[in-house]
Amino acid sequence: MRSWNTAILVFDGVEVLDFAGPFEVFSRARLVPGTESRRTDDSAPFRVFTVAPEKREVVATGGLRVTASFTFEDAPPVDMLVVPGGFGTRQLVEHAPTLDWIRRVAADAELVTSVCTGAAVLARAGLLAGKRATTHHDSFDWLASLDPTIRLEHDVRFVDDGVVTSAGVSAGIDMAFAVVEKRCGREVAEETARHIEYRWQPGS
Amino acid sequence: MRSWNTAILVFDGVEVLDFAGPFEVFSRARLVPGTESRRTDDSAPFRVFTVAPEKREVVATGGLRVTASFTFEDAPPVDMLVVPGGFGTRQLVEHAPTLDWIRRVAADAELVTSVCTGAAVLARAGLLAGKRATTHHDSFDWLASLDPTIRLEHDVRFVDDGVVTSAGVSAGIDMAFAVVEKRCGREVAEETARHIEYRWQPGS
Repeated sequence: MRSWNTAILVFDGVEVLDFAGPFEVFSRARLVPGTESRRTDDSAPFRVFTVAPEKREVVATGGLRVTASFTFEDAPPVDMLVVPGGFGTRQLVEHAPTLDWIRRVAADAELVTSVCTGAAVLARAGLLAGKRATTHHDSFDWLASLDPTIRLEHDVRFVDDGVVTSAGVSAGIDMAFAVVEKRCGREVAEETARHIEYRWQPGS
Repeated sequence: MRSWNTAILVFDGVEVLDFAGPFEVFSRARLVPGTESRRTDDSAPFRVFTVAPEKREVVATGGLRVTASFTFEDAPPVDMLVVPGGFGTRQLVEHAPTLDWIRRVAADAELVTSVCTGAAVLARAGLLAGKRATTHHDSFDWLASLDPTIRLEHDVRFVDDGVVTSAGVSAGIDMAFAVVEKRCGREVAEETARHIEYRWQPGS
């Protein structure tokens, strides 16, 4: 299986668990079970890296300081995109270079995903038009205002309508496991959940 | 309620969700419910910051690049310490300055906690002697070899025996919620879980 280049967008005001949850799940998934296989990337179905709008440190919610591995200019080709949420998305939906990059990436990627209010950024980039989608429980009105054609789904962990959107923050972990399952099978997803001792509930 | 200075140790080879899970829970807890109260620290019962052994970027498992806010030299007084795990703990248990700092901090802190193989670092610092404790499911033998007086507990999410140790990776989130509950009450913990849409199971 070819390893998917998995870009996780980080930006000022990104919510920590929004990006760290999927980062953990995708970067620790292995086709070969056990702790030893996690010491190398040999059987890793995803090659995960962070991408930021600019070449400088990003300050996440709560003050966590993260330096992305790439910017829009030098990021490798992206097979899967993860757009996390956080208060910073209020600015990000007005940031043309970010929206342009997301559109460009989405045109070629195998899969585009969001966590929490990351859905607002996808909506603003035009990627959720007419689609079923979800977001953080406090942001449905905002999402609807950005694109009234989105068919909002409440009380779900994630929605897969071509583009995969997650509910708030921790739901990104469940979204990531669903993607691992879809791409690598139930067994790989369950073994990865066991490795990180996550009480995964498949299908939700 | 006085805000607890909450230091989360980060180091090369720290597992991402080990530190990001508790970071998220402690930094987003609020005594005042709702999304708006998360825009300031006014009702935050924990002031969370990262601490690293040296003043340089740390590379977490999977390649996430994090810059700690403080080093051992300039960190503020610590009320609560979180020692995460990850493959990097194999080196950390031999790093005298880290063990010295942990002992020094533990002497004055209200609470010392670990996630996953962070328990090994606490054990090596002598903080788990004679105590009940847990760790990642693959590291019980290692933990026992570091201090045979530790009374190991399997198949639990965390153990509170004065020092609070968590099981593997994602169990750190449950440990953090248990600490929030103990310090701020069930209601604050449940509201914080709702805010980050975490399916918390109190008591486990």
